[in-house]
Amino acid sequence: MVDRARSADRIAAEIDTLSGPDFTLSDEAIRRYAYTEPYRRTLDHFTGALEALDFDVYEDPVGTLVARNRPAGEPVFGIGSHCDSNRNGGRYDGTMGVVTALEVCRLNAELGLDLPLQLISFLEEEGSGFGQMVLGSRIVAGRLDEQDLRERIRAIDDGRSFWEHAEEAGYEPARWRECAHILDDLTGWIELHIEQGRVLQDTGNRLGVVSAIAGYVHADIVVEGRADHAGATPMDMRCDSAVVAAQAIVELERLARAAGSGTVGTVGEIEVSPDLINAIPGRTRISVDVRGPDDDRVHRVVGDLEAFARRAAAERGMTATYVQRQTVPATQMDAQIVADLEHSAAASGEPFTTMISGAAHDTMCVADRAPTAMLFVPCRDGLSHTPVEEADPADAALGVEVMLGAIAAHEPPPARM
Amino acid sequence: MVDRARSADRIAAEIDTLSGPDFTLSDEAIRRYAYTEPYRRTLDHFTGALEALDFDVYEDPVGTLVARNRPAGEPVFGIGSHCDSNRNGGRYDGTMGVVTALEVCRLNAELGLDLPLQLISFLEEEGSGFGQMVLGSRIVAGRLDEQDLRERIRAIDDGRSFWEHAEEAGYEPARWRECAHILDDLTGWIELHIEQGRVLQDTGNRLGVVSAIAGYVHADIVVEGRADHAGATPMDMRCDSAVVAAQAIVELERLARAAGSGTVGTVGEIEVSPDLINAIPGRTRISVDVRGPDDDRVHRVVGDLEAFARRAAAERGMTATYVQRQTVPATQMDAQIVADLEHSAAASGEPFTTMISGAAHDTMCVADRAPTAMLFVPCRDGLSHTPVEEADPADAALGVEVMLGAIAAHEPPPARM
Repeated sequence: MVDRARSADRIAAEIDTLSGPDFTLSDEAIRRYAYTEPYRRTLDHFTGALEALDFDVYEDPVGTLVARNRPAGEPVFGIGSHCDSNRNGGRYDGTMGVVTALEVCRLNAELGLDLPLQLISFLEEEGSGFGQMVLGSRIVAGRLDEQDLRERIRAIDDGRSFWEHAEEAGYEPARWRECAHILDDLTGWIELHIEQGRVLQDTGNRLGVVSAIAGYVHADIVVEGRADHAGATPMDMRCDSAVVAAQAIVELERLARAAGSGTVGTVGEIEVSPDLINAIPGRTRISVDVRGPDDDRVHRVVGDLEAFARRAAAERGMTATYVQRQTVPATQMDAQIVADLEHSAAASGEPFTTMISGAAHDTMCVADRAPTAMLFVPCRDGLSHTPVEEADPADAALGVEVMLGAIAAHEPPPARM
Repeated sequence: MVDRARSADRIAAEIDTLSGPDFTLSDEAIRRYAYTEPYRRTLDHFTGALEALDFDVYEDPVGTLVARNRPAGEPVFGIGSHCDSNRNGGRYDGTMGVVTALEVCRLNAELGLDLPLQLISFLEEEGSGFGQMVLGSRIVAGRLDEQDLRERIRAIDDGRSFWEHAEEAGYEPARWRECAHILDDLTGWIELHIEQGRVLQDTGNRLGVVSAIAGYVHADIVVEGRADHAGATPMDMRCDSAVVAAQAIVELERLARAAGSGTVGTVGEIEVSPDLINAIPGRTRISVDVRGPDDDRVHRVVGDLEAFARRAAAERGMTATYVQRQTVPATQMDAQIVADLEHSAAASGEPFTTMISGAAHDTMCVADRAPTAMLFVPCRDGLSHTPVEEADPADAALGVEVMLGAIAAHEPPPARM
């Protein structure tokens, strides 16, 4: 029914277009973010394409793009992602989700399906403009307050407020609370995104149906010892903070493995002081990133690690301090939409798996208001946020077909409102 | 016989004088190094004090200060240290050794002992001027070549060569080979130095007789893994270089403890890449500092650590590469001078211990040519190379008394040459 090759060609052509010099601030990477010219042109490009399909297109009071083929108030099924990029970004992260949503809209027309659709391209998912991830969808979900927008959130480039930049770009940030209405009519939501991991590639699957977006804890553990001379201090007179930190790194791996169910734990940053070859580290800081679809397991790993570090430090006459940076609960995807996607994927005859998203996505915010799911396509070697990011338009076309099938199967719940 | 209190007062007064604004380039620390005005004034100060004791004072062709109370060619016992400092240095490191050597010379006259003495204050021990540690004594020991002095060794401040700076300061670097002669007549050598560790303080000893200066290996181990997304990469699909590095840090502690005999092992620098909380470290570098008085044990620890890291990396599909920076063998002190110092220390009735020097000293180079030993005095909390460095002149005065006793007991070996 769906001509996958033609869809793949159209998707490839869209990606190519949006990788051109008009759509990025950098010669070496995709770099586009809110209120810049390349970003404006990107929204205009989608607007043109969607209006050609007879969609009503508008932007919410701060700049999230919305396009629908039904009047306001009527139920619609939501699809989309974001089209801003990392500052040193690639062609596919986010943009592939909007381009495939557009392809869903095209096929919906061409195949005469007449499904009620609403496409959304969220503002500032990557934080490249204002240093705040999933900013647009958090505004829509009402997770920020006016003070954040007026004062706290400021542009990386010039330090001026989000509010000022939004006004300058012609938006009405004073009406930001109305952004929430873009989710009013959604009977469901699917976001297609590149995986940003290597699970699909390494397991030979072309699609991943996401059953949950992992919650996470970001924290630091700081071990305070004593910075003695590496040569002049016998082994039994040391308070070597790096050894305790090293024990904690090894223990975190053990705890995450033991927790199972997709729980992962990572120490990505290590900072020793004074950081000299001939000085025992008096202070060592390690970052802690623990994620998983099961919040209890995540918090148990973090708690066990904290206790381990305290104990290991105390045994050597040192202290370990745990400082939380941020914690975000897991987001469960809607069981029915997940089942619909699995059914549709199975019908395609292509290999797919059901999996967890370890990375955060706009869908986390949409899930506050509508039943949601996500669909992953492989990216080469799991690489994202880099110009060498690569994904196959054929996989994306398969994703479009699977989304279409799931949306068609979706039973709209009773109208919300 | 020795009035310790008076010696302590004189030592304290000398240290105070040399901590004044004329003797440092910094308002906040002692900062003096070769060919600067404060360094010149420091040499002049010692020259005046030694000439007042009827010593012949001269400087070798690059600026090491030598003072003796016997004509050239007659056997003398060597004492001294260095009077340059770390750039952010304290009052005692090095300078205490020259000040106490001066006090030995004073007491030698006052007590009518007439011991044959030669005081040496070596040039550039700390490397503050030219980035090269124990530079002056390495020149004396012939451990450098002319190309080093003419070209390779350059001033930190302006990048010009050691040679050029030495000539500008009025020296004759072209005669550098003659520097070796300053050790020609030595029948023995003792250097007093602050400990730079906390062994003496923590064990309640006032003196440490040094039986060996530790040899060391400085190296790096680089673990190469894969920098995947911390959220999107399951535990069993990772190549986390930081975990292998952490295992190596824990293992080094175990190996150094197991080696015993004063062997110590330290990871002082840790560098992870990309160093982001949400990225698995693709590459981790750790520095390795292993020291001890027994070269075999030192090299066995290093070899075992290297093998462990390779194996731990290979088990996880990664590689670990060992890169040596520098290796210096241990320097054994002369058994007779050590015994003389122990005997003299015991006679003082004050608590002392025999120990290893973990740090490098000019005495390593003197040992190429003469029987040597060192005497340590405690420094508060083991701190050195900092303006808060602190040592007790009373301990130094005790050290002077013990040195005098050891020198008096020393049987000069048959003339060398």
